Amino acid sequence: MTRSTSPADFSARSGLPTIGPETLRLWTELEARFLRWAAEFDAMPVRYPPLLSTADLDSLDYFENFPQLAVLGSRIRGDAAAKYARAGLPGPEVDAADLEPAGFALPSAACYSVYLDLRGTRLAESRRVTTVATCFRHETHYDGLRRLLGFTMREIVCVGAQADVLDHLARSRQAVTGFLSELGLPIEVRPATDPFFDRDGARSVMQRLFPVKEEFVFGDDLAIGSINFHRNFFGERLDIRQAGGDHAFTGCLAFGVERWISALTTHFGETPAQLVARIQAASR
Amino acid sequence: MTRSTSPADFSARSGLPTIGPETLRLWTELEARFLRWAAEFDAMPVRYPPLLSTADLDSLDYFENFPQLAVLGSRIRGDAAAKYARAGLPGPEVDAADLEPAGFALPSAACYSVYLDLRGTRLAESRRVTTVATCFRHETHYDGLRRLLGFTMREIVCVGAQADVLDHLARSRQAVTGFLSELGLPIEVRPATDPFFDRDGARSVMQRLFPVKEEFVFGDDLAIGSINFHRNFFGERLDIRQAGGDHAFTGCLAFGVERWISALTTHFGETPAQLVARIQAASR
Repeated sequence: MTRSTSPADFSARSGLPTIGPETLRLWTELEARFLRWAAEFDAMPVRYPPLLSTADLDSLDYFENFPQLAVLGSRIRGDAAAKYARAGLPGPEVDAADLEPAGFALPSAACYSVYLDLRGTRLAESRRVTTVATCFRHETHYDGLRRLLGFTMREIVCVGAQADVLDHLARSRQAVTGFLSELGLPIEVRPATDPFFDRDGARSVMQRLFPVKEEFVFGDDLAIGSINFHRNFFGERLDIRQAGGDHAFTGCLAFGVERWISALTTHFGETPAQLVARIQAASR
Repeated sequence: MTRSTSPADFSARSGLPTIGPETLRLWTELEARFLRWAAEFDAMPVRYPPLLSTADLDSLDYFENFPQLAVLGSRIRGDAAAKYARAGLPGPEVDAADLEPAGFALPSAACYSVYLDLRGTRLAESRRVTTVATCFRHETHYDGLRRLLGFTMREIVCVGAQADVLDHLARSRQAVTGFLSELGLPIEVRPATDPFFDRDGARSVMQRLFPVKEEFVFGDDLAIGSINFHRNFFGERLDIRQAGGDHAFTGCLAFGVERWISALTTHFGETPAQLVARIQAASR
C-alpha cells in the first residue's frame, strides 16, 4: 500500500477545499509559525464552539452588515424528518418549508467567539488569545483556494487597554512583514475598509484619522492576512470592561490559512516540501 | 500579562464546547497519538470539505437513517437579507420562511468524505486515509463533553479488498486496546448496532453473523471510539471498485476527541498536564 497522493494535492469545488497529505504538511508548518507568534505575544490558545447563536451575532450588528454572507445552521422539522425517514430527500436540497427556524450560524470570522466568551467580564489586565476556526461565507463566486465558502482562519486577539491593543497590532505588523520579507514573498500592506464601520458617520471619520484595518496583500488582491482595530465596539456591545471600568478595546491579527498556501504555491512554484523548508529557514 | 486560564479549562453550553489552553495541550497529545497510529497503518492524512452536499448524503441513505440528527446549512433569501440589512434580525432566530433551500449539511461523521471523494474510481490497491472533522448531530439532550451538538472525530479508514479492510480493523482493535490497557483506562469492547444496517433484513442477518460495529466503552455507556465494517455498502453506492472490478469494501477506526478528554479526566481526576505525561508514558 503506497502513500501516493492524488495528481493534484489540493483542489476546491463549489468553494469547498480538499487538502492532500503533502499540502497538509505545509499547512501544519504554517500553523506552527502562527502559533510561535502567538506564544511570543503571550496569547493563550482556546478552541471555541463551531457554531454561534444567531441572537449573539445579531447583538454585534452581524446581520445588518453581512446578511448575504451568513451560513445558517438549521434542522429538519419533525414532520418532514418522518417523511424523509421513509423515502429520503424529495429533491437534491432540503426545502425551506421543511426546516425549523435557524438558531445557529457558522462563524464567518474566528474572533467573534473570543469577544462573546468575555461578555460581561471585567478584565484584571489585558488579555491575548489565539484561536483557529473553520469559517464560512456565501460569496457570489469562488476561486480555488483564493476565495472559498469554507476556509480556515487563525487569529491572535488582544482585549483590554487601548495602548495594549495598539501595541499588539504594531508588534503583529512588524512580525509578519519581517517574516514575509525574510521568506521572499512580496506583499503590500494596504489600508482596507472594515465593513463594521462603513455605515456610521462618526466612526468613518475616526477611520480616516486612524486606520482600523490593514491587509497583507499578495499580487493584485489576495489578502493573506489582516490587522484589525475595532476600538471599543465589542467592549461596549458585550460589556467587557478594563480594570478601571472603561469598556475594553479589541484588535486582532488574522490569517487565512488556505490563502497563504495559494500565495506561496503561486509565487514560488515549488512543492509543499520545498515551501516547508523555506518557512523553516525564514523562521530561524 | 499572564497566561492564566479560566477557572474551568473546558466547558460546554447547549452542546457546544469551549476548550481552554491546558486541555488543548491534552487534545494535541491525543491527536498526536492518533496520527502515530495512522502513520503505522500507512494512512495518508487528508483534509476534506467542511460541508457536504445534501444530494451526496441522500445517495448514501443518510436522510432515511438520520433525518433528525442533521444540521443543514442554508443562506438567507435575498429579500430577507435586504430587510435584515436595515434592522437586524426580527427575533432571536432566522425564520425558515427567510431561508433558501438547504443544499449543504454539516458532517455527522468524518469518513463520508473519504468515500464521496473516491466516487467512480477503481483503486489499483487498497487505500488507507486519516482525516479529522468537526461533526454535528442534533440530539435530544447534551451532556458536557460526553454528548455534544458539535464535536471532533478523527478517523482512520481503509477502502479496498475485504481482507485488507478486515486486517485494518483487527490491527486497529489491537492497537487501541493495547494502548488503553497500558494507559490504565478501563474500557470494554462492545458490539453495537450500526444504524446503517438496521432497516434491511438481509443485512441484519449478516450483522448477527459478523459484527459490523464494536465500540470502546468507558464506564456505563461512553463510547470513546469505534471500529466499523460497512462491507461493500459505500463501494456499491458510490461505484468505488477494487483492482479486479468488484465493489470496494470499507471500514474505519473512529475516535471522539472530546470523549477521550472526558473519560481521561473523569477516570484519573488529574490535570491535563498529568494526563499528557500518562499518554506519553503509555506510548513508549
